[in-house]
Amino acid sequence: MMDERLKKQLDFALEIDKEKNIFRQTHLSGHGRNENDAEHAWHMSIMAYLLREYANEEVDIARVMLMCLIHDIVEIDAGDTYAYDAEGLTTQKEREDAAKERIFSILPDDQKAELIALFNEFEACETAESKYAHAMDNLQPLILNNSNGGGDWKAHGVTSKQVYGRQSKTRMGSETLYQVTDAIIQENIRKGILPE
Amino acid sequence: MMDERLKKQLDFALEIDKEKNIFRQTHLSGHGRNENDAEHAWHMSIMAYLLREYANEEVDIARVMLMCLIHDIVEIDAGDTYAYDAEGLTTQKEREDAAKERIFSILPDDQKAELIALFNEFEACETAESKYAHAMDNLQPLILNNSNGGGDWKAHGVTSKQVYGRQSKTRMGSETLYQVTDAIIQENIRKGILPE
Repeated sequence: MMDERLKKQLDFALEIDKEKNIFRQTHLSGHGRNENDAEHAWHMSIMAYLLREYANEEVDIARVMLMCLIHDIVEIDAGDTYAYDAEGLTTQKEREDAAKERIFSILPDDQKAELIALFNEFEACETAESKYAHAMDNLQPLILNNSNGGGDWKAHGVTSKQVYGRQSKTRMGSETLYQVTDAIIQENIRKGILPE
Repeated sequence: MMDERLKKQLDFALEIDKEKNIFRQTHLSGHGRNENDAEHAWHMSIMAYLLREYANEEVDIARVMLMCLIHDIVEIDAGDTYAYDAEGLTTQKEREDAAKERIFSILPDDQKAELIALFNEFEACETAESKYAHAMDNLQPLILNNSNGGGDWKAHGVTSKQVYGRQSKTRMGSETLYQVTDAIIQENIRKGILPE
């Protein structure tokens, strides 16, 4: 009935459904529950489109959006590694490489190669698209956490230095959005939410 | 610090976070919990990209992806109307029109106009992009429900005639994916899951 190529594509579509069960440390606005990776990716992708005028360099926005949508698929196997989890970060690459191979291999070879290349491009953070996508990966949880009074930082005892470390990538993608980020961090330091 | 335009864009970004709290009748694979609109949109958008070779007409895939990502934003106010809820469907348009005006008005005027036009295009289902996006809107919950033994249909006493009615739009967007849809429906009829 169905040819092998289409069967592989639909098998992959069903497999990535599992990303909805990978929960992050970020909480939804309104002091909601933890956010999952699929929701985060959806949110980032829309933000990328709406804020594209602030990218430092001209970007192919379709590539950015797809990059945002798929950048966490490896976490289906590897789990979410919190940005400030130093121990988890040491094994993150190994776990994610194995996941990348298993999950994208469900696709036909050409699409496997394409999506792995896009995933690797995001990780390398060297192209205009990947730098801007990283700015979204940082800004999206920042605005949620800020709307919740910095609850996620408080829960993990995160310092302003750690936040600046992570958010530095935002500047590579968007100087304007980095200024917003800086203002939010400074405000949270002033309020005593982020210790210096 | 921040200009009015950027403030509006970030206010909108925060507002749409609420879409993650709008739950649908569809359940996640593995007999999981109900799916929410943001997850559904994320999933549709990736599927749209990967299955674009099966669209009946050539599509601008970036437009399709964005359409998929935003097509349920109005449900933040209007709620999800189940595809087989005849009563809810009679008031759906009125509820969604009010929501559309309120939510997209948070954006700067040009982006408000752009996103409303894209939303209306999806609803009208006349362009190649919107027909193909509708095929995704149908196929995505179908593969989840099918993976769960048709549990969502059983819970609502849905008949094969109702499913065929809804899935007819898939054919407008993709003849190939309609054939897959038809095979899935027929299989569920044979298994006694969908009464004729």
